[in-house]
Amino acid sequence: MTGTGAGGTMLPRPDFTATFPGPFPAGPHDERTEHRLLEWLEEHPLLPSAKAREVLVNITSHGASRTFPTADADELALFAELLLWLTAFDDTHAEGNAAGGPAALVDRVSELMPVLADGTASRAPDPFPAALHDLLARFRARAGAAAYHRLAASLRDTLMGLVWEAHHIARPEGVALATYLAMRPHTVFVRTIMAAGEIVLGYELTDTQRALAAVRKSETAVANLAGWINDLASYERERERGPQQPLSLPTLLQARHGGTIAEAFARASGMCENEAAVVRQGITDLAHASPDTLTAHARALEGITHSFVWHTDHARYQPSPAR
Amino acid sequence: MTGTGAGGTMLPRPDFTATFPGPFPAGPHDERTEHRLLEWLEEHPLLPSAKAREVLVNITSHGASRTFPTADADELALFAELLLWLTAFDDTHAEGNAAGGPAALVDRVSELMPVLADGTASRAPDPFPAALHDLLARFRARAGAAAYHRLAASLRDTLMGLVWEAHHIARPEGVALATYLAMRPHTVFVRTIMAAGEIVLGYELTDTQRALAAVRKSETAVANLAGWINDLASYERERERGPQQPLSLPTLLQARHGGTIAEAFARASGMCENEAAVVRQGITDLAHASPDTLTAHARALEGITHSFVWHTDHARYQPSPAR
Repeated sequence: MTGTGAGGTMLPRPDFTATFPGPFPAGPHDERTEHRLLEWLEEHPLLPSAKAREVLVNITSHGASRTFPTADADELALFAELLLWLTAFDDTHAEGNAAGGPAALVDRVSELMPVLADGTASRAPDPFPAALHDLLARFRARAGAAAYHRLAASLRDTLMGLVWEAHHIARPEGVALATYLAMRPHTVFVRTIMAAGEIVLGYELTDTQRALAAVRKSETAVANLAGWINDLASYERERERGPQQPLSLPTLLQARHGGTIAEAFARASGMCENEAAVVRQGITDLAHASPDTLTAHARALEGITHSFVWHTDHARYQPSPAR
Repeated sequence: MTGTGAGGTMLPRPDFTATFPGPFPAGPHDERTEHRLLEWLEEHPLLPSAKAREVLVNITSHGASRTFPTADADELALFAELLLWLTAFDDTHAEGNAAGGPAALVDRVSELMPVLADGTASRAPDPFPAALHDLLARFRARAGAAAYHRLAASLRDTLMGLVWEAHHIARPEGVALATYLAMRPHTVFVRTIMAAGEIVLGYELTDTQRALAAVRKSETAVANLAGWINDLASYERERERGPQQPLSLPTLLQARHGGTIAEAFARASGMCENEAAVVRQGITDLAHASPDTLTAHARALEGITHSFVWHTDHARYQPSPAR
């Protein structure tokens, strides 16, 4: 797969025909989810712009449907709302959009802490804490204590990841590749999606299952792939924003190995294809394992991978004017 | 109780004779804990200075012994190591000591994230990630999944609290009092101490018990009191460090209400005494409750309160030269 790069050059993209060829199964609740998201945004005005609302609600409802196609309508809507919350928070307060820089993001995150720490409702003027409070209360009502805490932990990790990113976004060439690779899963929300999946789909790995090499290896590969795919998809959109390179896999590969940005894209695409093969093998192994919980986990990881492969073709990731 | 302030003036201090008069019971393992801490620091060289090691090991072992006097020797040593880790991390990388400012602290925290998120060992040159990995593996082996995740969540909240503090420490007058009061429990480690207490003492509240008004009210009061007591104790030590006021309760009370720093101390002391009365009442109510789990929780909260009241008289908190 290739795309048109800045200046009309073609940038290499990963080829998933051998591992995740698509089309990917979608659930039956797309329209209902879209409607629920719009209603929820009426109650929690996270996105003032009607255009931003429309694009984000569209990608989120269709993406959620491909992530967990077998989920019930109510659970899927709750999951989609969480995903929307994360993306809207990132778009509004992080990603270099925060007018006040890292310090302003840290202050917005600090308003979320009472919500995360002990379920206290926030009285901040920002709508994000109240919306998160609503989401977490509903997840808590559906989840056991450990599953809920895993979800809340992944949200904290995402917030710390966004804070870390905000401190480095102005000077991406100062970030070591290994550090970036370790942090990237947290800023792409994939660990939160995994934790939410167990609640939404109604299964829970035991501690022993979670520690299995096959599970850890598959989860790590899904987490890597999600961030890298997103980096390739969003590169041109982010490149348009400012004079500096995006804090992104191709940027860091170019800094590390030299060469053109097209060569960095080729290298990143190869990494994606290799990681997709690891994911495919892991899913196959787990899907044939017993007990059923591991099979359920394999299906969840497959759906999560589908959604990340799928989402890169959405209008949100096309260069302007579709931002 | 009064102390000698900067310039020899006497600053008012809270009077706990009506609520927590002391002396406070200590467990039988002080010397053994002190020895274990020194051994652990050989393995994990968190504190290069022998003097800093000696002072911190002393206050931590005696403080831990007063926090959970009935704990077994092994559990108490593990708890003391966690407390030492937190204090040493704060002293080394936070509290305005980080030479690189907030960005350097964020980088140190990012090295802890793989350890917290999925137990991956770190290869960072900084000794703190490896030491945390060791601690968390031992807590995990002793705790149920939910109890472990509560502990790890409180650690994440502490780290985010320290990052927040680092962004405001140079200009404390810009912080709203309400924001400070909400963040302070996270930077004084008291929520981590509570979470560790359940593991160390071998009890676990049910979700229903945890949501009881008596439990929440008592925990909140202990959390507030811990931070405020520490602020009054450490004010002069922090005041000596730099030209600006410490980011601390008396500073913010003075900014809010005007008057002298002695008047702010008097106001803060009154707040402490009121909160101590809430704690005492809450402990009494819970100690008479059934089932035994609530009684155990009341004893834990009482020990935690004792340790915070006790620690303010330690040499660590005397103005120079005892720093």
